[in-house]
Amino acid sequence: MTGWVKIAGLGPGSDDLVTPQVSDALAAASDVIGYIPYVARIAPRAGLTLHPSDNRVELDRARHALSLAARGHKVAVVSSGDPGVFAMASALFEALEYGPAIWRDLDIEVLPGITAMLAAAARIGAPLGHDFCAINLSDNLKPWALIEKRLRLAVEGDFAMAFYNPRSKSRPEGFARALYLLQKACGDARPVIFARAVSTPAEEIRVIPLNDALPEMADMRTVVIVGASNTRVIEGAPRPIVYTPRSVLP
Amino acid sequence: MTGWVKIAGLGPGSDDLVTPQVSDALAAASDVIGYIPYVARIAPRAGLTLHPSDNRVELDRARHALSLAARGHKVAVVSSGDPGVFAMASALFEALEYGPAIWRDLDIEVLPGITAMLAAAARIGAPLGHDFCAINLSDNLKPWALIEKRLRLAVEGDFAMAFYNPRSKSRPEGFARALYLLQKACGDARPVIFARAVSTPAEEIRVIPLNDALPEMADMRTVVIVGASNTRVIEGAPRPIVYTPRSVLP
Repeated sequence: MTGWVKIAGLGPGSDDLVTPQVSDALAAASDVIGYIPYVARIAPRAGLTLHPSDNRVELDRARHALSLAARGHKVAVVSSGDPGVFAMASALFEALEYGPAIWRDLDIEVLPGITAMLAAAARIGAPLGHDFCAINLSDNLKPWALIEKRLRLAVEGDFAMAFYNPRSKSRPEGFARALYLLQKACGDARPVIFARAVSTPAEEIRVIPLNDALPEMADMRTVVIVGASNTRVIEGAPRPIVYTPRSVLP
Repeated sequence: MTGWVKIAGLGPGSDDLVTPQVSDALAAASDVIGYIPYVARIAPRAGLTLHPSDNRVELDRARHALSLAARGHKVAVVSSGDPGVFAMASALFEALEYGPAIWRDLDIEVLPGITAMLAAAARIGAPLGHDFCAINLSDNLKPWALIEKRLRLAVEGDFAMAFYNPRSKSRPEGFARALYLLQKACGDARPVIFARAVSTPAEEIRVIPLNDALPEMADMRTVVIVGASNTRVIEGAPRPIVYTPRSVLP
């Protein structure tokens, strides 16, 4: 078969954070499939069909990509950030596992990208410079109780934490509960970073002591990073530097 | 001051995984500082001084970079992968915090890169497609007891896990203990991925059920990924696909 699927990470927003590997795949593709705002980042050209689709239809989108590839199309499935981190790669392999056997012969490749937490961390210092967890705070596809359990264990293990999908219009309350849990469990003023639309013209980054963090500081374009107990803040202008040291004393 | 420090992530090895942002910084630099094998990836050119240094001298290297920048040099500090993940960014900010006050006026920027665990995950599917932890298994700078504690909590929380620096000649035993702990605590045949030198000509990737994983399968060039309890394996050639689903049933 001549068709292929490349599940490509566009990085957080800026073109200079897109890898050459991804740029080459986009240049070779016949079709680009993805969530509307991500497909909007791809320049139209002759011979390229853009297939933007809405949120929450990841499996349909994955099946569409695999079907097109089985008919010989060269399909780039685009995600913001890295496709393997709370993005399209898992959905695509889920569709593959439960789909027609012929799909297993397709040429499928994941092309990594700069994921939001690492782009955000880079803009503020190195808050994820030691052991950390990445947690999706959306309870659309898992029970809220599991999210709370993971938060408590992450605090007990003194991991730094990065939260994806902290808050949306349809889920305004979860992040408030998560913040409250963290404020009680950590009991300190460790830094929280709210990083919105990193590397785009709409970028906004702020650092707040955990005690003062408010749910309204996050939305769906925000990644939230919470330091470990030993995370340091170096005060400065235009904003502080936050880093987690490489050493933990016994 | 005209000098600057850019702490740049070179990605896992392949040139097509280096972001344009990093390539531009390297083209503008007067000095490149880093661990010998990473500096060896930079092409020499007129006007560029390369400063390779040995392992375990991260703070010296950081101070060297800051001193040069304070004298007007344009310094790229290079790390493999992402500089904010178990790499040079934390060391640089530690040197900054405890160094001369004048260093705080320097123009310092972290340029993110494709970190090893995400490059490895992309090559095998999407094993980090849901909540996960990243843990440095080296006990050079933290007590081994803390590593074991974090492993136990990560298993209890059913996170997927990525391990950096699993095993070296000077620390052959830690990874054996970690594997034994995981085999006892998980009690199942979830997949373990050993990904060595990803995206280089020396790349080797294998997937092994946790019960069959052996310490000798890892070295310092290996990143190890352990699936969550619901991580799936799709058998196939030349190797299986491993992914962690987006959903967790209640």
